[in-house]
Amino acid sequence: MRVRFSAREGAWDDWAPALRAACPEIDLRREGDPAAFDAIIYAPGGDIADFTPYRNARLVQSLWAGVERIVGNATLTQPLARMVDPGLRQGMAEYCVGWTMRAHLGMDRYAQDGVWRNGLVPPLAAERPVTVLGLGALGGAVAAMLTDLGFSVTGISASGRAMHGVRALPLERLDEGLATAQILICLLPDTPGTRGLMDARRLSLLPPGAWLINPGRGTLIDEAALLDRLAQDPDAHAVLDVFATEPLPPAHPFWAHPQVTVTPHIAAETRPATAAPVVAENLRRAMAGRPLLNLVDRGRGY
Amino acid sequence: MRVRFSAREGAWDDWAPALRAACPEIDLRREGDPAAFDAIIYAPGGDIADFTPYRNARLVQSLWAGVERIVGNATLTQPLARMVDPGLRQGMAEYCVGWTMRAHLGMDRYAQDGVWRNGLVPPLAAERPVTVLGLGALGGAVAAMLTDLGFSVTGISASGRAMHGVRALPLERLDEGLATAQILICLLPDTPGTRGLMDARRLSLLPPGAWLINPGRGTLIDEAALLDRLAQDPDAHAVLDVFATEPLPPAHPFWAHPQVTVTPHIAAETRPATAAPVVAENLRRAMAGRPLLNLVDRGRGY
Repeated sequence: MRVRFSAREGAWDDWAPALRAACPEIDLRREGDPAAFDAIIYAPGGDIADFTPYRNARLVQSLWAGVERIVGNATLTQPLARMVDPGLRQGMAEYCVGWTMRAHLGMDRYAQDGVWRNGLVPPLAAERPVTVLGLGALGGAVAAMLTDLGFSVTGISASGRAMHGVRALPLERLDEGLATAQILICLLPDTPGTRGLMDARRLSLLPPGAWLINPGRGTLIDEAALLDRLAQDPDAHAVLDVFATEPLPPAHPFWAHPQVTVTPHIAAETRPATAAPVVAENLRRAMAGRPLLNLVDRGRGY
Repeated sequence: MRVRFSAREGAWDDWAPALRAACPEIDLRREGDPAAFDAIIYAPGGDIADFTPYRNARLVQSLWAGVERIVGNATLTQPLARMVDPGLRQGMAEYCVGWTMRAHLGMDRYAQDGVWRNGLVPPLAAERPVTVLGLGALGGAVAAMLTDLGFSVTGISASGRAMHGVRALPLERLDEGLATAQILICLLPDTPGTRGLMDARRLSLLPPGAWLINPGRGTLIDEAALLDRLAQDPDAHAVLDVFATEPLPPAHPFWAHPQVTVTPHIAAETRPATAAPVVAENLRRAMAGRPLLNLVDRGRGY
């Protein structure tokens, strides 16, 4: 199979060896006659803007979990698949568990100032309500790992998806899920329906001192409203990995804010070693005409 | 059954209601004729120094997991049981998971200085070797939780205890377990054999940049040797919950050290709500002459 690779400068060196190892039959190229390619492997930063000439491509496989930057491309009429990488899922779950534990244990209360504050014993995880907003491949993995650790988890999803040990709420009951969230983890995709969802009113529903962790998409949160909310609640904290503008500009108030921790969009890194076998499987399915994995629903936008 | 309660000032108010709820048949008292008591519930800070007059006591139940402060009392000839509280075990596992994740994710590398350092992506937990020193009730719970999260766990114990998914080493092979420990969690009891075990030579075996987490007993570590080791390895870090002297004196160099995080002996808090049912079960076993739970082996010292 002949496959066109199109991603940011530098990605080729990371991906080509892993893709060839996972799929020895691949003829992977960075250029050539568009009509001769059976599939396209794509990530933002790639050089394809018009997908029309790739008229024989049976699959456009995204290397990113989020496809908001290509799903609206009207020339992209081929089947489009998102990346669902077991390594990305595990990495995201680890990020969320780590920051949840930091909030839960109150690590930042132990100032290193010589004062022995041994009255500050946190409750057990079972007494700590955590809400996971979004129960897709990533949010579901996070909710499962937190449940295994003993946390009291509420999961909110468009479908009201049921998960073992998780209190499931449909998106229409978001307000209820926010009201109990001592820790809120946001893992919704970027769609017209989620942009600005966490606005001033919804942020105000969170309990005093709540931590908000957003490793999903920056467009979910009204950043100005979040700054207002933090000003009103000095014990509240936000851990943000994604932003309306990335990289986050050096002068942005989040950087120096004592109630905000910025991480530079590292929560969900697609790792070639774990992702390449998923791409290989999807390429084989496309060639054989079998059902594709992680196919994007254009109507939903993800 | 008549039971003598002896612990620090203030403990009575925390414990008496939980003990009476878990064991309605208990006649719990803070004083009385020693010969009339069937059992003793004890914690350091209590008023009993000579256990000889309690000649009819069938059990001395410690409220602490560590019994090093009473196991050497020659007047204590009654059966002595340690506290193994499911809440304490869970709390300890949460503490260790939280600090392990902080080390693993490299949370402290993301300075809030306006620089977008998105090249710093941590490996997955499977690529992170963690060594748990001590696989008793607490260390075993920690090793199990870390294994569930995906970490590559080595467990070291006096017995070489085997655990599913854990690379088990006996204490004689401690050096091997230290050499691979990017994160080392110390959960050994305080016994003549463990005092000063983590000396300059053994600390020097840890890989560069290793994190040492000690929520067990302060006597395990040669504190001066640890300070030397940290001076030699600027990426190394220690998270210490226990110390040779507690409370840690305000002028101790650990407090202000940028490579040391002090927590005030809060990792393992016995919680009356979860511990009282364990005490009740052991009291009933003592009265009925059945085998006791968590009996201390005087020869081992724990």
